[in-house]
Amino acid sequence: MDSNVQRRSVLAAMAGGAAGIVAGAAPATAAPADTAPTTKERLKGYTVPLSPRGVANLAGKPPWNYVGDAVGAEFWTSADAAAASLPTGLDPDPTSNGHGYAVFIDWQFAATPDDYLDPPFSLYSEFLILMDAQWQGTPVAWCPFIWVDNDASLARGWVQGFPKKIGSIRQTRAYNIDSLAAPVLGKGGKFAAMMSAGGRRLAETSVTLDHTADRLPALTRPIVNLRHFPQLAADKQDTPAVHELTMSVLDNLKFANTWVGTGDLRFLPAPREELADLQPRKVGVGFRGTLSYSVHDLRTL
Amino acid sequence: MDSNVQRRSVLAAMAGGAAGIVAGAAPATAAPADTAPTTKERLKGYTVPLSPRGVANLAGKPPWNYVGDAVGAEFWTSADAAAASLPTGLDPDPTSNGHGYAVFIDWQFAATPDDYLDPPFSLYSEFLILMDAQWQGTPVAWCPFIWVDNDASLARGWVQGFPKKIGSIRQTRAYNIDSLAAPVLGKGGKFAAMMSAGGRRLAETSVTLDHTADRLPALTRPIVNLRHFPQLAADKQDTPAVHELTMSVLDNLKFANTWVGTGDLRFLPAPREELADLQPRKVGVGFRGTLSYSVHDLRTL
Amino acid sequence: MDSNVQRRSVLAAMAGGAAGIVAGAAPATAAPADTAPTTKERLKGYTVPLSPRGVANLAGKPPWNYVGDAVGAEFWTSADAAAASLPTGLDPDPTSNGHGYAVFIDWQFAATPDDYLDPPFSLYSEFLILMDAQWQGTPVAWCPFIWVDNDASLARGWVQGFPKKIGSIRQTRAYNIDSLAAPVLGKGGKFAAMMSAGGRRLAETSVTLDHTADRLPALTRPIVNLRHFPQLAADKQDTPAVHELTMSVLDNLKFANTWVGTGDLRFLPAPREELADLQPRKVGVGFRGTLSYSVHDLRTL
Amino acid sequence: MDSNVQRRSVLAAMAGGAAGIVAGAAPATAAPADTAPTTKERLKGYTVPLSPRGVANLAGKPPWNYVGDAVGAEFWTSADAAAASLPTGLDPDPTSNGHGYAVFIDWQFAATPDDYLDPPFSLYSEFLILMDAQWQGTPVAWCPFIWVDNDASLARGWVQGFPKKIGSIRQTRAYNIDSLAAPVLGKGGKFAAMMSAGGRRLAETSVTLDHTADRLPALTRPIVNLRHFPQLAADKQDTPAVHELTMSVLDNLKFANTWVGTGDLRFLPAPREELADLQPRKVGVGFRGTLSYSVHDLRTL
Repeated sequence: MDSNVQRRSVLAAMAGGAAGIVAGAAPATAAPADTAPTTKERLKGYTVPLSPRGVANLAGKPPWNYVGDAVGAEFWTSADAAAASLPTGLDPDPTSNGHGYAVFIDWQFAATPDDYLDPPFSLYSEFLILMDAQWQGTPVAWCPFIWVDNDASLARGWVQGFPKKIGSIRQTRAYNIDSLAAPVLGKGGKFAAMMSAGGRRLAETSVTLDHTADRLPALTRPIVNLRHFPQLAADKQDTPAVHELTMSVLDNLKFANTWVGTGDLRFLPAPREELADLQPRKVGVGFRGTLSYSVHDLRTL
Repeated sequence: MDSNVQRRSVLAAMAGGAAGIVAGAAPATAAPADTAPTTKERLKGYTVPLSPRGVANLAGKPPWNYVGDAVGAEFWTSADAAAASLPTGLDPDPTSNGHGYAVFIDWQFAATPDDYLDPPFSLYSEFLILMDAQWQGTPVAWCPFIWVDNDASLARGWVQGFPKKIGSIRQTRAYNIDSLAAPVLGKGGKFAAMMSAGGRRLAETSVTLDHTADRLPALTRPIVNLRHFPQLAADKQDTPAVHELTMSVLDNLKFANTWVGTGDLRFLPAPREELADLQPRKVGVGFRGTLSYSVHDLRTL
Repeated sequence: MDSNVQRRSVLAAMAGGAAGIVAGAAPATAAPADTAPTTKERLKGYTVPLSPRGVANLAGKPPWNYVGDAVGAEFWTSADAAAASLPTGLDPDPTSNGHGYAVFIDWQFAATPDDYLDPPFSLYSEFLILMDAQWQGTPVAWCPFIWVDNDASLARGWVQGFPKKIGSIRQTRAYNIDSLAAPVLGKGGKFAAMMSAGGRRLAETSVTLDHTADRLPALTRPIVNLRHFPQLAADKQDTPAVHELTMSVLDNLKFANTWVGTGDLRFLPAPREELADLQPRKVGVGFRGTLSYSVHDLRTL
Repeated sequence: MDSNVQRRSVLAAMAGGAAGIVAGAAPATAAPADTAPTTKERLKGYTVPLSPRGVANLAGKPPWNYVGDAVGAEFWTSADAAAASLPTGLDPDPTSNGHGYAVFIDWQFAATPDDYLDPPFSLYSEFLILMDAQWQGTPVAWCPFIWVDNDASLARGWVQGFPKKIGSIRQTRAYNIDSLAAPVLGKGGKFAAMMSAGGRRLAETSVTLDHTADRLPALTRPIVNLRHFPQLAADKQDTPAVHELTMSVLDNLKFANTWVGTGDLRFLPAPREELADLQPRKVGVGFRGTLSYSVHDLRTL
């Protein structure tokens, strides 16, 4: 995006500006309820495709419930690379610039129990980066890159502001049985995870567990995303239809079986990718644990 | 979408209403250039993910060039099913209500020649439905459903208003050599194609070629799409951020080696899908041909 | 392959040996140990591809260790269909003809711990059928059909006599945390699983757990397989190089967290498949549990 | 398998025959025709899985017909690496040791026309290496490594002696139309191809066409393969059931639209792979063309 971006809602919010001037992705704000049009779209659904019965859409309306096993590591990249990854509206965190997390998660999603009885829809794996940042002085986590292996998850992610691409993500599994084919979920247990996209390995980690923890190190800050959806009209391609910073609202966030220890982490360079620009200069703790939360809302910043 | 949808830009356009009142997906329209904010987003790119160097985005800005081999069939579904598939703003075509096309295409995409030298990025296969409709009395083709096997294509499609989902699409290939392993690209040649998503066969066609034609039957009307991108804030989930009818602008559309003949076509029911609601009651011509075009613009209706 | 390889056909050919004396795949049998040739194959490995360093082969020599989560159901098909599925050498079990199990397993494989730190290699999912049968009066389980999503697993399977094809297999997951996105692993918990191949759904089950059990119902009999590998020489295509009944030897078979209850099960017909010929007429218990074992040997019957 | 199957180990066992006399995979060799057992296997098919109706097998009996578009390059690796890649029974070619070809092919397979009307079965892509070698003084091509994306192709390959693994293979396509999205199939046209397995890029080539040729450079020598199928019995894991050099018999081999020019080629190292041990020291001609042949026989060397 190399020319003016109309992000007045964000600007307004950051400057305490008056609602009502906004453009960018702010139509709902701009239109007071009493002037709202009354046309009802006859097609139904939340995301595309809208359809007569409203069941074909990739993602229905929230609430969205998630449970997953996570493996990952904290890392420090260069301060410059970290700062460069931030969108306008976020600042480097002066106390931890360059610090972030790489997290691989085997998710199960369900809006209703019927969903987890449809595993091709419900199951997906994810890899994401969370970088320390500040929004108006508040410590936040910024997600510059994220990959999943499921189009419904991609659709939900875009709506949340997670810039999801399709990739292949795999992590070592733990089983509730003693076996030579699985690590112990305990001290000394080793887990690995990796992500590929376009047939290229892009990220890989391995962790050795040492002790339990109350929660995953990676999810201690609110996640800030950038909802972004461009226009295609020839004269508006530099003016996105939606471009707004948001903060995730995670309901009922729970952790279980969290272990932390040491970790390795590498990002591998590839065309059409900038993940390796965040190459770790130092790797901190590695971790493995289970988490669960629900989403029913999003805060626009 | 089961409550009010603010689609004032479309309403305004259709009614010749004044610009400026708009909401829905119309921010750019609402903000005259002279009042546009001047903040430049420091991240670069056209679609997500925006990034420091602007190469990580799934889709860069147009022009987008396409070439593909298409196999498909025309069909008639019930008038009611066809009418139900249309979004608000489109009307059934009184001369051909129920008539449409099912098209399977093996595409190669390239913004620049470097792209077609990156086939995991450039190659993709697609299946789409085009239904006859009218927009303000003009004959158009409406795309209710479309599947591709490539996330960059999905991203471009969403920006165009094509409601793409991920699927697996395969078609019989022709080769420039006489072989027992391929049909003749000529009279009597038989081709088939099919699409699956979520591990279920959803559509299948077979065609037998009879005679040449100047162009594919399926692309005789301008394609109308619905650009749609929801909000997630709890009180705005029924108010999409973007919801606007658009008309595709295909530059330099060319056809070659077009053959038409007879065809079979079936849609198979599946949970989370409504394609089979458009079940063919009659199948018309089958076809196979090559097409090429470019996209650099989109018309908002 | 790091010891003697008996390759008499080549030896004979290289030594000007008479054509016609040796052929086929016969060295091991035809050559009593005391007359075995001493040529050492310089390429290394256990399965294909053999290679200079012996690391490129799809599967190295045992021991092979496995751990997995299984979901499935017992069923009864017609006595005729069950009998027809048996190879020569096996007889219908007069006490339970028509009875079998459909089992979906999310496996992790490891010959060494390094393997489970390579999840794209180590993880795979499987669907298999086990039918009651008798071998010389002994109750056994015959595996007529099995699908996996990993080529290393396919290679190991063929060596064991499991007639593996590639498919897509998914099952509901349990997590060690309370979540709306997962069933309880306990009374009332519901799990589902399904398998697709070639883009078609071929099998699906759902189970509701009721009470614990000591072991999975599905693995109470020794598994009998048919190792089979054809010849391609024009006059030998009806004479397989390998065609022998075998009995699996599962070391250290363990079960944990086994629950049984009720189940549904369906096989869906498809071209190039005969699974649906075993369509359940009645479904018995459903089950969900974890199992682990090792393989280092195979008994030829 | 609809004729006699020699299954002496089973027969012997069932008849109370002495253990130790028969074993392994040896019936064809060990049993002269006049003493062959007459038991007919009641299951049908050519490869696994054998089944009641004989349609479930991954590959039916030949003839097998193929047509494909090939892109690739010739290369020279070190003489040592080339020699090390050869199985016992083949010698380095003193005139061209180190010389080989890397070839990417988009295939369509059909035993009957119904097959190419089933594209998920019929279509596949392949990458293979062919190294110059000699068999008893005759120039031959040895295939040390090959990947495909289709299990039916893998099964046929193993029967032929091609040591196929599953990978993802993509090549630039040519279309019969002038487009910015495709190279010209003529002087100056550029094509690329690549192969990934396990989520890692393993090979990539790009070629620039210069002039036409009568045939693909890569297929000027008969292809020698090593049919290999191990035993799993604990004491026989070093004694394969099948281990024999074979020479492919390609019927009616035809070429069309062959262009040659310059090429680049790289192999990328990866765990569990030895392809990069054959790293090109020099790259020769690049090429792109169409080929077709049939297989109905195999010569055992």
